[in-house]
Amino acid sequence: MFEFDTRLLNDCEVLGKFKLCHVLLMRDANYPWCVLVPDRENKTEIFDLDIADQNQLQLESTALLRFLNDEFNADKMNVAALGNVVSQLHVHHIVRYQKDIAWPKPVWGVFPARTYSDEVLNKLITRLHNGLRKLDLDFQPK
Amino acid sequence: MFEFDTRLLNDCEVLGKFKLCHVLLMRDANYPWCVLVPDRENKTEIFDLDIADQNQLQLESTALLRFLNDEFNADKMNVAALGNVVSQLHVHHIVRYQKDIAWPKPVWGVFPARTYSDEVLNKLITRLHNGLRKLDLDFQPK
Repeated sequence: MFEFDTRLLNDCEVLGKFKLCHVLLMRDANYPWCVLVPDRENKTEIFDLDIADQNQLQLESTALLRFLNDEFNADKMNVAALGNVVSQLHVHHIVRYQKDIAWPKPVWGVFPARTYSDEVLNKLITRLHNGLRKLDLDFQPK
Repeated sequence: MFEFDTRLLNDCEVLGKFKLCHVLLMRDANYPWCVLVPDRENKTEIFDLDIADQNQLQLESTALLRFLNDEFNADKMNVAALGNVVSQLHVHHIVRYQKDIAWPKPVWGVFPARTYSDEVLNKLITRLHNGLRKLDLDFQPK
């Protein structure tokens, strides 16, 4: 049975689920940052998924990239599957701005996460729920 | 007409081309590291590609990940499309080891590139050419 790596739950809010992937929001107010986690056990690399799941991950990832890009008016999107620390397969989708704190570096390890206030976090979650529902990807909010 | 961003050519050897993507080797002896560059003009995000090209990129990327993982006995593969500095769409595929110089951090900006000797570089290029030809992706060596 699928279970999240507890480190993902420590760092993220679970927003809901597409057909294949859970959609998480990284609790880092420095960047709008979502993470897709395929609902599959014991996968660490994209090629560990079967072909149908690889295709579905790509569909969900590309739609999420485009949504975040448009919704947050990104200067650039960053997408990455690293997993050197948390090996459970997960894919980062990060909105980048030329004015953000780490630009033009990648975000990992540059600055500590900045805490969201409860009010800002709740508004952001509502905004994301509303947008993700419109993506035609069977989004089910948590 | 497609042209490489000159910064990619400065940092990489062009190994050849799959059906869609040019295959480059990063000149950094710290990690076996290939880069895919779709042969399309004026693309910066994956969703700028049409659907057929998105699917082909995924096919080539996943096959390359699996090949590098197996050929170099990786502890983990890292795959990322960032583009904060070089906006021309390109996707990194990096072999990571728990003993590599940057582990477990992402590789960007941690250590300067380590130069390959001509002998090691030429052997590596031959090894990659031989492996990439076997991937059933119409690899054409340069």
